[in-house]
Amino acid sequence: MVENDMTAENLRSAYGGESQAYQRYMVWGEKAEEDGFPNVGVLFEAIAYAEQVHAANHFKALENVKGDHLVASGAVFGYGDTVENLEGAIAGEDHEIEQMYPAYSIVAKNQKENDAIKTFHYALEAEKAHSKLFNEAKDSVEEGNDIELEEVNVCSVCGYTIKDEMPDYCPICGEPDEVFETFA
Amino acid sequence: MVENDMTAENLRSAYGGESQAYQRYMVWGEKAEEDGFPNVGVLFEAIAYAEQVHAANHFKALENVKGDHLVASGAVFGYGDTVENLEGAIAGEDHEIEQMYPAYSIVAKNQKENDAIKTFHYALEAEKAHSKLFNEAKDSVEEGNDIELEEVNVCSVCGYTIKDEMPDYCPICGEPDEVFETFA
Ligand SMILES: [Fe+2]
Ligand SMILES: [Fe+2]
Ligand SMILES: [Fe+2]
Ligand SMILES: [Fe+2]
Ligand SMILES: [Fe+2]
Ligand SMILES: [Fe+2]
Repeated sequence: MVENDMTAENLRSAYGGESQAYQRYMVWGEKAEEDGFPNVGVLFEAIAYAEQVHAANHFKALENVKGDHLVASGAVFGYGDTVENLEGAIAGEDHEIEQMYPAYSIVAKNQKENDAIKTFHYALEAEKAHSKLFNEAKDSVEEGNDIELEEVNVCSVCGYTIKDEMPDYCPICGEPDEVFETFA
Repeated sequence: MVENDMTAENLRSAYGGESQAYQRYMVWGEKAEEDGFPNVGVLFEAIAYAEQVHAANHFKALENVKGDHLVASGAVFGYGDTVENLEGAIAGEDHEIEQMYPAYSIVAKNQKENDAIKTFHYALEAEKAHSKLFNEAKDSVEEGNDIELEEVNVCSVCGYTIKDEMPDYCPICGEPDEVFETFA
């Protein structure tokens, strides 16, 4: 739950941003498959699911704010080739890591909004993993190669995302491996 | 593709709205299951998928508009019981049917934006089916009963949604039954 208007607005903006990130990653994942990079397609699908976890966490933190709102969110557009789409994905993740979530987190802390502090922290930490994975994928696709990938594991509690490995406990939220979803 | 700023802005706004509708329906679907209405949960999940089809269609119509944009979209909030959530869903669908898509469509026609005309038309017609299905579900849940449901079929081209029936051809976009996704 949330008490202060500024944090409520930041939660709504972040919810709108995560919701749009989910959709563009699903579209770009399908495009990666069409472009001959099926493993990049799986990576997009897995990270889309992580953004869904963030969207759901932000939405639930807003449980006591009901009704219609006009939501303003930054979003990346463009339906290009897979290198361009990965560049768009990296730009969006890095904006969240460097600008959006640090700013929203410091306001939430100032306003002692515990639910928002937690959901912003989970998202910020998960986006760092996303940026790294998309950068590796971009390097590979620029050389004309799909990424090597057995599976991608995503924490359903915080959105933490890891390739070809299953941690015993999530390094961000501390939940055990049963809460992870596997994409392959 | 899109040439005029006003239609591009309307496509982005509708994309933001559909993206957020997808996420709230997924959250509300899970809540319906927890509340003891699993078939309402399936209905939410199926209609969420229809909103994903709309989001993807709008996003692809914007293929030539690249980079960052601030997107302003109307969205419904609230994480209540399943009757309240269905009321929120109906309010959102009816806003799209009565206000948003008619306004965006008339501008797109005036600007001869053919891709936008098509994707707005598909969404507007599909939302009519959604509003009807959510209203039936609300009537049932208000009486304390889950809805009766075998399956929900959703057109992957236009988002048309129909319960317990598979049309030979989609009544909105005309595609054959193979393009439908089934939720049960
Ligand atoms: Fe995220
Ligand atoms: Fe991310
Ligand atoms: Fe986690
Ligand atoms: Fe829709
Ligand atoms: Fe709808
Ligand atoms: Fe259709």
